Amino acid sequence: MHSPLPVLGGRRPGWWKMLAVAMYMALLACLQAQELQGHVSIILLGATGDLAKKYLWQGLFQLYLDEVGKGYSFSFHGAALTSTKQGQEFIAKVLESLSCPEDVAPGRCAELRGQFQQLSQYRHLRTSEDYMALSKDIEAQLQHRGLREAGRIFYFSVPPFAYADIARNINSSCRPGPGAWLRVVLEKPFGHDHLSAQQLATELGSFFQEKEMYRVDHYLGKQAVAQILPFRDQNRKALDGLWNRHHVERVEIIMKETVDAEGRTSFYEEYGVIRDVLQNHLTEVLTLVAMELPHDVSSSEAVLRHKLQAFRALRGLQKGSAVLGQYQAYSEQVRREQRKPDGFHSLTPTFAGILVHMDNLRWEGIPFLLMSGKALDERVGYVRILFRNQAYCAQNEKRWVADQSQCLPRQIIFYIGHGELGSPAVLVSQNLFRPSLPSKSWKEVEGRPGLHLFGRPLSDYYAYSPVREQDAYSVLISHIFHGRKDSFITTENLLASWVFWTPLLDSLAHEVPRLYPGGTENGHLLDFEFSGTQLRFSQQQLEQLVPGPGSAPKPSDFQVLQAKYRESPLISAWPEELIAKLAEDIEATAVRAVQRFGEFHLALSGGSSPVPLFEQLATRHYGFPWAHTHLWLVDERCVPLRDPESNFQGLQAHLLQHVRVPHYNVHPMPVHLHQRLCAEEDRGAQMYASEISALVTNSSFDLVLLGMGMDGHTASLFPQSPAGLEGTQLVVLTRSPSKPHERMSLSLPLINRARKVAVLVMGRMKREITMLVSRVGHEPKKWPISGVLPSSGQLVWKDPVKSFCDGDTSFVGRAVMEVVQTIQVL
Amino acid sequence: MHSPLPVLGGRRPGWWKMLAVAMYMALLACLQAQELQGHVSIILLGATGDLAKKYLWQGLFQLYLDEVGKGYSFSFHGAALTSTKQGQEFIAKVLESLSCPEDVAPGRCAELRGQFQQLSQYRHLRTSEDYMALSKDIEAQLQHRGLREAGRIFYFSVPPFAYADIARNINSSCRPGPGAWLRVVLEKPFGHDHLSAQQLATELGSFFQEKEMYRVDHYLGKQAVAQILPFRDQNRKALDGLWNRHHVERVEIIMKETVDAEGRTSFYEEYGVIRDVLQNHLTEVLTLVAMELPHDVSSSEAVLRHKLQAFRALRGLQKGSAVLGQYQAYSEQVRREQRKPDGFHSLTPTFAGILVHMDNLRWEGIPFLLMSGKALDERVGYVRILFRNQAYCAQNEKRWVADQSQCLPRQIIFYIGHGELGSPAVLVSQNLFRPSLPSKSWKEVEGRPGLHLFGRPLSDYYAYSPVREQDAYSVLISHIFHGRKDSFITTENLLASWVFWTPLLDSLAHEVPRLYPGGTENGHLLDFEFSGTQLRFSQQQLEQLVPGPGSAPKPSDFQVLQAKYRESPLISAWPEELIAKLAEDIEATAVRAVQRFGEFHLALSGGSSPVPLFEQLATRHYGFPWAHTHLWLVDERCVPLRDPESNFQGLQAHLLQHVRVPHYNVHPMPVHLHQRLCAEEDRGAQMYASEISALVTNSSFDLVLLGMGMDGHTASLFPQSPAGLEGTQLVVLTRSPSKPHERMSLSLPLINRARKVAVLVMGRMKREITMLVSRVGHEPKKWPISGVLPSSGQLVWKDPVKSFCDGDTSFVGRAVMEVVQTIQVL
Repeated sequence: MHSPLPVLGGRRPGWWKMLAVAMYMALLACLQAQELQGHVSIILLGATGDLAKKYLWQGLFQLYLDEVGKGYSFSFHGAALTSTKQGQEFIAKVLESLSCPEDVAPGRCAELRGQFQQLSQYRHLRTSEDYMALSKDIEAQLQHRGLREAGRIFYFSVPPFAYADIARNINSSCRPGPGAWLRVVLEKPFGHDHLSAQQLATELGSFFQEKEMYRVDHYLGKQAVAQILPFRDQNRKALDGLWNRHHVERVEIIMKETVDAEGRTSFYEEYGVIRDVLQNHLTEVLTLVAMELPHDVSSSEAVLRHKLQAFRALRGLQKGSAVLGQYQAYSEQVRREQRKPDGFHSLTPTFAGILVHMDNLRWEGIPFLLMSGKALDERVGYVRILFRNQAYCAQNEKRWVADQSQCLPRQIIFYIGHGELGSPAVLVSQNLFRPSLPSKSWKEVEGRPGLHLFGRPLSDYYAYSPVREQDAYSVLISHIFHGRKDSFITTENLLASWVFWTPLLDSLAHEVPRLYPGGTENGHLLDFEFSGTQLRFSQQQLEQLVPGPGSAPKPSDFQVLQAKYRESPLISAWPEELIAKLAEDIEATAVRAVQRFGEFHLALSGGSSPVPLFEQLATRHYGFPWAHTHLWLVDERCVPLRDPESNFQGLQAHLLQHVRVPHYNVHPMPVHLHQRLCAEEDRGAQMYASEISALVTNSSFDLVLLGMGMDGHTASLFPQSPAGLEGTQLVVLTRSPSKPHERMSLSLPLINRARKVAVLVMGRMKREITMLVSRVGHEPKKWPISGVLPSSGQLVWKDPVKSFCDGDTSFVGRAVMEVVQTIQVL
Repeated sequence: MHSPLPVLGGRRPGWWKMLAVAMYMALLACLQAQELQGHVSIILLGATGDLAKKYLWQGLFQLYLDEVGKGYSFSFHGAALTSTKQGQEFIAKVLESLSCPEDVAPGRCAELRGQFQQLSQYRHLRTSEDYMALSKDIEAQLQHRGLREAGRIFYFSVPPFAYADIARNINSSCRPGPGAWLRVVLEKPFGHDHLSAQQLATELGSFFQEKEMYRVDHYLGKQAVAQILPFRDQNRKALDGLWNRHHVERVEIIMKETVDAEGRTSFYEEYGVIRDVLQNHLTEVLTLVAMELPHDVSSSEAVLRHKLQAFRALRGLQKGSAVLGQYQAYSEQVRREQRKPDGFHSLTPTFAGILVHMDNLRWEGIPFLLMSGKALDERVGYVRILFRNQAYCAQNEKRWVADQSQCLPRQIIFYIGHGELGSPAVLVSQNLFRPSLPSKSWKEVEGRPGLHLFGRPLSDYYAYSPVREQDAYSVLISHIFHGRKDSFITTENLLASWVFWTPLLDSLAHEVPRLYPGGTENGHLLDFEFSGTQLRFSQQQLEQLVPGPGSAPKPSDFQVLQAKYRESPLISAWPEELIAKLAEDIEATAVRAVQRFGEFHLALSGGSSPVPLFEQLATRHYGFPWAHTHLWLVDERCVPLRDPESNFQGLQAHLLQHVRVPHYNVHPMPVHLHQRLCAEEDRGAQMYASEISALVTNSSFDLVLLGMGMDGHTASLFPQSPAGLEGTQLVVLTRSPSKPHERMSLSLPLINRARKVAVLVMGRMKREITMLVSRVGHEPKKWPISGVLPSSGQLVWKDPVKSFCDGDTSFVGRAVMEVVQTIQVL
């Protein structure tokens, strides 16, 4: 027998035969395997919609171009509620306009487009029967062509109210056979707030498994965004020392649009810029920048875990974390498009700036600025990480050289697109490091003389742009096809984001946004700045928000007034000024005490009333002798110290974290001993008393800060409860009428030994008791507060501005009202 | 009688007479009072020296111009060791060249100069007799002219070694009569370090009262420097919220020179740039910027008090706080001028950059950069306060407007002189505020197109320069004459400055400065940058400082080695890597513990050994679960917790201050109870034991970090002392052979219950014990460390790289040696 294979060496013919058979078998297996990849059916729901027309059909065609000949077969089903005829016409038109990448010759492109058109068809999809029919057709086709089924993709490009129905139908009628996968692709909005998002997620969860769902945030398909984690990974060494609060000055995450919401106000009016852009796109980018870098960035689970960790580190947002704007034409557009009456004014923000902080060691204190808006001066999106300038350059600035001077700005920019550069890019200041990017997909940007970006000429950067620009949807459709889940929003991720944003959205619901003209006319009107955790527009504007007859009183209309109350000095002022004055007094008292005695003993009350005072002291009193101050508690709830209810916990969060009081000068009340709370036999009160006796000369505090309850209680000394009102005990266990009932408190005799006692009463609910107490005598058993009368010291009452509080407040401007609601003093 | 006064109304003649007499009397009194101001003698010692020639004679002439005709009479005595003839000639020549301000007509100027020459004379002043003669002459002249003596000014423009003699002579022979004042003016250097400055001050103090001494720092006479406090005072309102760590990004205090030290190396070689410029000029400026602003800035005492407070807030400098340079020609100049041998290399720095931090709430964390040098690219001096950019500007940067955009740099510059501006100035960015300056003495600077300063065109600033430029010495001489002490350095101020600088100077004594070519050729060679409290040149340079045969081992030559020691894992590494590895291990252990149990119990040893570890943990481990970590002490010295000797104090300073461990998770040992230290009857050890039992599951710490002493002790368990080596006690009181003798310590049985124990041994002195312990068995009574054997846990030894430590280190480069000296691991 003649062997068809060339003879190599002196092998025996039998050996060659065996080899040949083996090779034949392998070839067969290989060919079978290719065919065996199977058939994929892609059903585009909402196939005649805008998104489908603009991006999705093109994305599906791109998928076909990329995957054709790799062993899969395809069918594409455009589905909608449109009648079959109209739908078919629509689809035919869209398919005609599909384009190929530049490197595909026109002839070949036409050929491929022809094939794609062959594989695509429209179908009307409304009833359960329609879905069953769809599934049957797919199965019939598979059987007819003798194909194995690989999987089915259902792309929901439909409004969210349609989700449930479709999902139910797919789940009951359209699941593929055993061994094949189902993937459903969902488009935002994914709810309107945490509750609705959760409801939607629960509903979807009853039809699909988590792994079957692909929630699209198309920002994750943007090439510059998709490059963030790989960039951090590939430049680990250079970034490791830089990517933290010691080196980063700020992070800006920006999406600016020039278009406005015209024609889309029915959607926009319900969502606004925060739900439309910040809650999803910008937040996703934020987590990519801020998360701890997983060891393996290609692991979806690891990325998700780190992302969720980043969410947990986000500090809660407050009203003051945001500035809102609305372009001037918006309300008119809403009135027109939604037939609203002439007097209608929308409160929906079309512009928002948000200040985000993260409470972890990597990012603590570093501002993350998120901003997006419509009708701005340019269309551009970017993430900018600006590093601190920690250098001093010994030469005159004229002689600074871009790649050497550490005094020129150092920044890394993920340029998402548009803007002056006109394409996605990654920019790294040359004085930072030369970055490593995958050379297959990213190339250096060519010089563009005269182009300045972020304060420096383009030539100051190592600048890279994609070798081939890809539309985000094409990228994401390819990821869906390959089952790469890391570019999609998991349920956990989605809900974590809503948990973060919902309280802010709630608190802003009735905020009036600043109006802006739009475009370059905005000038500096929308510039904003931060101080601490507060954001505000840089340009002040006196906004008369609720116009009324006459002018509303403003904080500056009130001065600090001094008077008498129960024969002690009474200081009345606008709340903010009162707090400022009180903080000043405390500092002066502290400075004097430290000068005279070397230390200052301050006993503080808990609760929410003194919080603004703590914050004032923490951030404005640079000369406060904290290192020589002892902090004592006036009273404590019998809960573990770490309990959010604990007075000490409040002190820790609002004061101790921000100042440097030595550990041993801080004296929490020992309410938690031997794993028990305020057990009489643990003698916690006695311990605290002896600690006071040991450290405080004559057990006379330099200053005791008290509050007053609506029942006339002070410290944790309550009416009709004898403990602590008289006698020799310095510290007592008491019982509160409200929860938690058990308390520890300084006794009235101890309080009255203090050199100075200040009573600060907050909250408009306390007006009546204040009036009442002003008239009663020394009746501590009825009104413990009336027993506060320092024997040798000084008592100061902090009181509100009555003229304002007694007046009718209905005409008062919103700004003023807020202050009153938050820290009104009575 | 005809009245010489015009008749006003119908007064009676007698009334007019009375008025006339009264007016005559008043006129007489006025004229007498003017004469009565008295005579001032000014004696310029060192009248033929450089300083006198360049500035002082002109300053005295200016004084004469300012004060002539205001009731004083003057005599000026130029004194020196020069022979009378030579001296007279010198003086005559100098006086010829004196100039008047621009607004004095030439003729009038010549006339005044002539008067001044008449009042000035030279005298040879060497012996006590000379001084007596001088004083007699002054008295004779006073008597002759019938003048009252107002006072005498002695201006010491002589080398410091001459001070004592002159001072003694003045004190014994030249004091003015009763009622007249004596003022002595002293020129730097005021010592060479704290000790010599103190000696000099004590010596001078034995001759003069503090109020008689005027120590000149001529920088305080520079107009821009003198304006700092008035500026802060006059712009209090605008600056109040800005002048603090929340708004200031950095402060630069700079004095650059183009000249070098040629011709002055005999002086310079002894002092160097820190003593010459930083210890005095730049430090004074620093205190003016940083001090709390006194209520009354014109009060010398208040200013001094606040200045001293600022000194107390300065954080101590370490070697790492400085970068040093020396221009290349310097050593050659020293060799030439001081006849040094060819091989001589000076270590004197001619350039220094220093990073200063202040430990107060106003400035904590804000870098104050001080820099001065010779042979630099430009001559300029300035203080620059750069504010943080806390704004986001919503428009493209092309549309930012200088006075509106908060995103452009915001800075205040006190421009001391020279540089591109060429005159003193105060510059305030227009986007900050429009400053208030005294319009009599400061005027707006005229436009200078094309001039950029500190990154912005001059037109971006509100810019002011003095109406009349004044030389610093003229200003100061006028202040001396008027007895204004706030522009001079008091003894307290001087010593406070030396207290601050001396430790740094000592630690830098043998530092080799970086060589720089000089002028613009320096390029970026002298740029420096900071990270934390460390300063370093931006451009790295491999410096072989102590050349030796072969190449010295470098840290990177060693890898982490793993082995066995006493049957437990032994990790050997270069110290820095070992610390990094240990920190990593601790973090990993912490993360695992928190994941599994929700908390992590870490017991730490005190002393200096773990300090680098604490710092590593504090600044590099962002993922460390501090909020869930409990910190315990392994042992404690029986000293109050706030004592610098206390282990807890070290933990507080190096770790607790930088991370956020909740107060109630920190467990100092109760060594100080009832005002006593470690009294058996206070049962502190038992208290700590029960705290451990209550909080730590099974009393088994997750990790215990131990050290080892040269005598084989560990924790505070010492050889030949039975306490804590066995038994059931968890915490014990022990006795150390070294002070403080009394200690509290975890017991060996408790340590051995830990899940993991790490022993970190630092210091080359511990080599022998390490070798010894490696060979002994379980003999805790002899070597307590040998008893460390966690029953169920894991023991890890941290060991040095033996190959290196055993080798001869004499050839090892300096950089390497430092590491070894600081944190060598054995």
